[in-house]
Amino acid sequence: MMAKNQTNKLKIFNDPIYGFITVPYPIIHDLIEHPYFQRLRRIKQVGMSHMVYPGALHTRFHHAMGAMHLMTEAIEVLRFKGVKISDEEAKGVTIAILLHDIGHGPFSHALEHSIVSGVHHEDLSSLFMQRLNEKFKGQLTTAIRIFNNTYPKKFLHQLVSGQLDMDRMDYLNRDSFYSGVSEGVISYDRIIKMLNVHKDQLVVEDKGIYSIEKFIVARRLMYWQVYLHKTVLSAENLLVNILSRAKELANKGEELFATPAFKYFLYNKISKKDFDKNPALLDLFAQLDDYDIHTSVKVWMNHSDKVLARLCTNMVERKLFKIELQSENFKENYVYKKLKAVMHNYKISEKEAAYFVITDKISNNAYNPEKDKINILFKNGNLKDITEASDQLNIRALSTPVQKHFICYPKDC
Amino acid sequence: MMAKNQTNKLKIFNDPIYGFITVPYPIIHDLIEHPYFQRLRRIKQVGMSHMVYPGALHTRFHHAMGAMHLMTEAIEVLRFKGVKISDEEAKGVTIAILLHDIGHGPFSHALEHSIVSGVHHEDLSSLFMQRLNEKFKGQLTTAIRIFNNTYPKKFLHQLVSGQLDMDRMDYLNRDSFYSGVSEGVISYDRIIKMLNVHKDQLVVEDKGIYSIEKFIVARRLMYWQVYLHKTVLSAENLLVNILSRAKELANKGEELFATPAFKYFLYNKISKKDFDKNPALLDLFAQLDDYDIHTSVKVWMNHSDKVLARLCTNMVERKLFKIELQSENFKENYVYKKLKAVMHNYKISEKEAAYFVITDKISNNAYNPEKDKINILFKNGNLKDITEASDQLNIRALSTPVQKHFICYPKDC
Amino acid sequence: MMAKNQTNKLKIFNDPIYGFITVPYPIIHDLIEHPYFQRLRRIKQVGMSHMVYPGALHTRFHHAMGAMHLMTEAIEVLRFKGVKISDEEAKGVTIAILLHDIGHGPFSHALEHSIVSGVHHEDLSSLFMQRLNEKFKGQLTTAIRIFNNTYPKKFLHQLVSGQLDMDRMDYLNRDSFYSGVSEGVISYDRIIKMLNVHKDQLVVEDKGIYSIEKFIVARRLMYWQVYLHKTVLSAENLLVNILSRAKELANKGEELFATPAFKYFLYNKISKKDFDKNPALLDLFAQLDDYDIHTSVKVWMNHSDKVLARLCTNMVERKLFKIELQSENFKENYVYKKLKAVMHNYKISEKEAAYFVITDKISNNAYNPEKDKINILFKNGNLKDITEASDQLNIRALSTPVQKHFICYPKDC
Amino acid sequence: MMAKNQTNKLKIFNDPIYGFITVPYPIIHDLIEHPYFQRLRRIKQVGMSHMVYPGALHTRFHHAMGAMHLMTEAIEVLRFKGVKISDEEAKGVTIAILLHDIGHGPFSHALEHSIVSGVHHEDLSSLFMQRLNEKFKGQLTTAIRIFNNTYPKKFLHQLVSGQLDMDRMDYLNRDSFYSGVSEGVISYDRIIKMLNVHKDQLVVEDKGIYSIEKFIVARRLMYWQVYLHKTVLSAENLLVNILSRAKELANKGEELFATPAFKYFLYNKISKKDFDKNPALLDLFAQLDDYDIHTSVKVWMNHSDKVLARLCTNMVERKLFKIELQSENFKENYVYKKLKAVMHNYKISEKEAAYFVITDKISNNAYNPEKDKINILFKNGNLKDITEASDQLNIRALSTPVQKHFICYPKDC
Repeated sequence: MMAKNQTNKLKIFNDPIYGFITVPYPIIHDLIEHPYFQRLRRIKQVGMSHMVYPGALHTRFHHAMGAMHLMTEAIEVLRFKGVKISDEEAKGVTIAILLHDIGHGPFSHALEHSIVSGVHHEDLSSLFMQRLNEKFKGQLTTAIRIFNNTYPKKFLHQLVSGQLDMDRMDYLNRDSFYSGVSEGVISYDRIIKMLNVHKDQLVVEDKGIYSIEKFIVARRLMYWQVYLHKTVLSAENLLVNILSRAKELANKGEELFATPAFKYFLYNKISKKDFDKNPALLDLFAQLDDYDIHTSVKVWMNHSDKVLARLCTNMVERKLFKIELQSENFKENYVYKKLKAVMHNYKISEKEAAYFVITDKISNNAYNPEKDKINILFKNGNLKDITEASDQLNIRALSTPVQKHFICYPKDC
Repeated sequence: MMAKNQTNKLKIFNDPIYGFITVPYPIIHDLIEHPYFQRLRRIKQVGMSHMVYPGALHTRFHHAMGAMHLMTEAIEVLRFKGVKISDEEAKGVTIAILLHDIGHGPFSHALEHSIVSGVHHEDLSSLFMQRLNEKFKGQLTTAIRIFNNTYPKKFLHQLVSGQLDMDRMDYLNRDSFYSGVSEGVISYDRIIKMLNVHKDQLVVEDKGIYSIEKFIVARRLMYWQVYLHKTVLSAENLLVNILSRAKELANKGEELFATPAFKYFLYNKISKKDFDKNPALLDLFAQLDDYDIHTSVKVWMNHSDKVLARLCTNMVERKLFKIELQSENFKENYVYKKLKAVMHNYKISEKEAAYFVITDKISNNAYNPEKDKINILFKNGNLKDITEASDQLNIRALSTPVQKHFICYPKDC
Repeated sequence: MMAKNQTNKLKIFNDPIYGFITVPYPIIHDLIEHPYFQRLRRIKQVGMSHMVYPGALHTRFHHAMGAMHLMTEAIEVLRFKGVKISDEEAKGVTIAILLHDIGHGPFSHALEHSIVSGVHHEDLSSLFMQRLNEKFKGQLTTAIRIFNNTYPKKFLHQLVSGQLDMDRMDYLNRDSFYSGVSEGVISYDRIIKMLNVHKDQLVVEDKGIYSIEKFIVARRLMYWQVYLHKTVLSAENLLVNILSRAKELANKGEELFATPAFKYFLYNKISKKDFDKNPALLDLFAQLDDYDIHTSVKVWMNHSDKVLARLCTNMVERKLFKIELQSENFKENYVYKKLKAVMHNYKISEKEAAYFVITDKISNNAYNPEKDKINILFKNGNLKDITEASDQLNIRALSTPVQKHFICYPKDC
Repeated sequence: MMAKNQTNKLKIFNDPIYGFITVPYPIIHDLIEHPYFQRLRRIKQVGMSHMVYPGALHTRFHHAMGAMHLMTEAIEVLRFKGVKISDEEAKGVTIAILLHDIGHGPFSHALEHSIVSGVHHEDLSSLFMQRLNEKFKGQLTTAIRIFNNTYPKKFLHQLVSGQLDMDRMDYLNRDSFYSGVSEGVISYDRIIKMLNVHKDQLVVEDKGIYSIEKFIVARRLMYWQVYLHKTVLSAENLLVNILSRAKELANKGEELFATPAFKYFLYNKISKKDFDKNPALLDLFAQLDDYDIHTSVKVWMNHSDKVLARLCTNMVERKLFKIELQSENFKENYVYKKLKAVMHNYKISEKEAAYFVITDKISNNAYNPEKDKINILFKNGNLKDITEASDQLNIRALSTPVQKHFICYPKDC
């Protein structure tokens, strides 16, 4: 809830997880009210996961607010321990976390694999921040430097993007809370209380080892049980194919129901360069959200193209594809057998049938120390990576990536 | 999560509130999978409340599942106490609660005041149930009789629709949970444990008096803090006016972006009778959900009609109207002053300005014993209404309706 | 958990309710470690309530820590709103809340009605604070002035002892949490966020009206469902009679198993004056806790005095007296009938039988505006008492005291 | 709360974790009311852990009630899946879990290492059950056979005592809840829903793999963070030494304050055989609880033996010994150095000083497949142990035991 108190200084939002979220600076308030940020109210945080977990409808808006709240807490803890953070830096790092996901479009993963291939949400986040910095007359400069990791104090960037950043702290909790998968709950408050800075690196005090272990395990669990849940995977790949088919039809000049903004992206080939050249494109992109996609999919159930119509019906009526996972590649003739069955049952060509048989692979490692370490600070001043600090092999085991291959196909084939 | 176990008998859904929801009968499973029910996944339970409480995005689908879950618990408790409920009755009352809200369209309140005026969601629920009963060959007959209160055992209807029905038990909890307004939490489990049946009436054992008091107070709180929250009121009335304006333009034959189904309801005058005459209309209605409305509102921001475009922009960019509430009627000249300001600021006619100045009233009484009593059963076999059973005046006080008048107008007027 | 971090400045305790409690000043840490405070670890917060709610074993130690934590939050909120609170005042008010209950003995209510009649825990709290102020060389002076309400800024005292003090905020939550009576949960975080100071009075901003209403209702509920629960009443009155009988036997010089400290209070008549005269008495009192009482009661089960032995057996084996409550006085001949039954069944004299038949009355009003108001601050600067600010009669109703008479007697009589 | 409803059939207890606990059979109600079971109200579940986690005061009584509640749920799930469990078996397995810990004395671990060495609580549980079976005329026969694993259906014993028994399900949750160590929370409800029986073995369906992984990790965490927390270890070893010293003094015939029951065990050497020979001994043991121990320790602070007095003062005033842990043995001369410091500082003999310097080792493996496997049932009917079913090395890693050596000594030495 946005509530202005008598003195107009204390703005608070209701959050089922943290109770209340207080907006710490007026500039944050203004950024939240900007349409670029308000659009995040219409973009779900975990895409198609609600097909499996009906409560997982929370938005990127709410997540960004939550991450901002945790940042405020982290700053307070670090300052209490004597870490120097100026007011400008505190404001900068808080803005950086608030806007870290502002470049996300609807169902980013699906979109990036079909409609705007080659344009990543990280690039768009940078573009949005620059645009906002112009509008707010340079007030976001420190935030952008922290976000891009060009600011001298490196631990500030780690709070925004690192193994223990406030992004992860919030999303693991939030996704766990709204999906009802209680295994994903982490002790974010305990972890934040254990943070410290050592030689400009974000570290965790040794008392926090078990919480970190639990955090890594919970993260892995959320991957397999929510983000990469087999039915979610099936739904997301179905959406990718719906959008690819629509794009193919659009390329042929066929008529497709869509909002003007969505239509533009369907009927034009857009690359990263186009965004740089044409500033109006960002504003057009800012008009896209989950509603554009869902509405089109619903209307396309009655499209004259049988492939598109069937794919969309499967989605809307929740007749999702069956999915199989295994550690090895699926045999070519197994895939072909499925393809044949689709061709035969639906009386369509092989090229069309390919939209109904999907093979791909996913991988995940719960903790990748090669990219960015979690350093544990011992009382004697020693630093150790968590895989060495932990008295068990299991954390080291968790840093080995797991890869799975999958195939999706209609249940009646 | 919909999970079929080895024996295909135990289907469970994840619910952040109850942990797990088990589907008790195969027919329930089939009803849930039907597109009529699946569409509830796309209709938010509390309409515009998410404008104030960003987490309140939960759907009528999830609510119906939750109410079904509580019904299973209530049946178990009552049977344990010796109340006779046959398997057919148990199945019937569970189906009745599952489908009690199936007639809801998107933003029902707003829709019923603009697009399909005179057609109430209760009527549509009945129509949907009849249609499903045909499809499922009479298996819903007992459920429909319980729903319509024509079944002999009256307490079964009270479990579906009454002062302490499973609908309220779930929605108070669910809306409180997702909005983060913790004051609305009720001890549904304790209340259910205290239910009993006395002379075919649902009663509460006297041990439960305090829980019932708390339930009535919590309900009142949720009304003023969520359902009738001033900003929510403002947003909902804005939506009513958007839809009314669109309907007016449609009547004039102007072009409006909309999905085919939404278009039909915009461009035609539909009454309850039309649904009776034309069976296809129900299927068309079943295609409507929140996405149709939101998407049109977004596109209409750029409509050539300035009134519609401005109203829609206010909604999408969350520039909601200021709202004032008071116990008396607003003075006519105060309302006219606001109207004048709008005419002047936006350079529009009085008729057009009327879309920007809204006056109406709302009322609520937390407990209305005239309509349906909450009976407390004492150990000596006496029955008393809660207002008499409670040793305090406050419950009696809560049964007095509270009425408030409000006015909404743009902040810049 | 008491955890010293690297810099030895951040001490934290685990709390199931608030997550973590941070000790804000070194002096607080030293006070917590003092044996006077550590003894609160051995005194249950809600005496005999665990006989009904097996989880309600939490101690005055934990409650004091929790109230201190909420005080830290209240100070932060008030300062954020511009209320001037110096560091010395912040420290003082935090010490005052930490020590507000330090004078409690084991089962205070029972003890004050039997063993140390006429010596109230408030007097002892003052004595303990003075003693600690000597030991800590005057560092508690501000705290004591705030506690005694002799400090100029009156709102500080209201935070320690008033309608909305941090004592109540914590105990309502804590007792509700540990007993599992979820109806008692209050939105302490929301209420604290709504606090403000107006003309040196603690006030609540008008946004918080519903939370205050809920708070008053929850408090009333906790009274009837926990503190004055009929079985709890029965157990506490049984304990009073056990101690009275023991005192009577001690006066006659009979031998009673007891720790040396407990023995002193059993065999001597102690008044408030004795504490003033004899400083060593306070240290003796400081040795008493729940363990002294429980252990004696257990051993007295085998005492040669049949009255004492039977009362103690009833307690230890949880054969509690039956209790009846009603709004009027119990008729004399009803009470006498019960007395006769006890005399006959147990073959004891009328004087002895009186230990088994207890009559008394209890009263409670959820909100007493005569003593101390809850003031609501409106945006226009107006102040109104909550009974007038609320748009319902029910809060006014709740300020009427409710009185109940009760009688307890053995179930076999 | 023990509440009898009108028909006297539904008895419910309040539980902060599960909401309500219903007593399923009259015999269970009678067992709960028996003094042998009521005494568990006075024995803390996690001994000295409250010294670190002030909320961890919950009792074996509450844990036994909770485990009974989960058993009721497990039976319901298994029957729903078609597993045959007769009413007699259901009652038997429920009684078995209710009474599984009835042989626990106060601070069992400490007691078994000092006062009643060689008598394990498992033996006493068996004795208590036999005694109760006599009192209840053979109604516990099935329960005892299940408890002793002599009943033909082996999975029933596994529900009482096995890798996934209801004992663990409850205590992990309960200890986590009351200590506030949220990392220990497990999804007991999900795990129970995933249980099944395959060839008379309790198994988990493959959907539950991640929950089982989380369960094993949570269990390990609770060991290191609660049960074997270094400060808890220190406190428990201090208590062992207090009791050993007291026993030594008793052997010499010195006077010690104690309740009659505790005195008997202090002044006599009791072995398992004595319990078999002397039936009255069990009733004497049944009189012991935490209160006997705590009260004596408090009084012994003033004992003339300086060693005992100092140890007890350390305990009561929470001046616990410093503790160091490491993976190797502590060097002999390091231990001796500490011993010398104690001798010098306290001016006592080496033999006396040994009470102040404690060395020992602890070990824990989160999952020991050698003793009892956790079998995962796949949809194709295959069974795999969790270490093989999991796609990660980490569970295998967790089955390696971890051993730590520790030394405790006074902080001023």
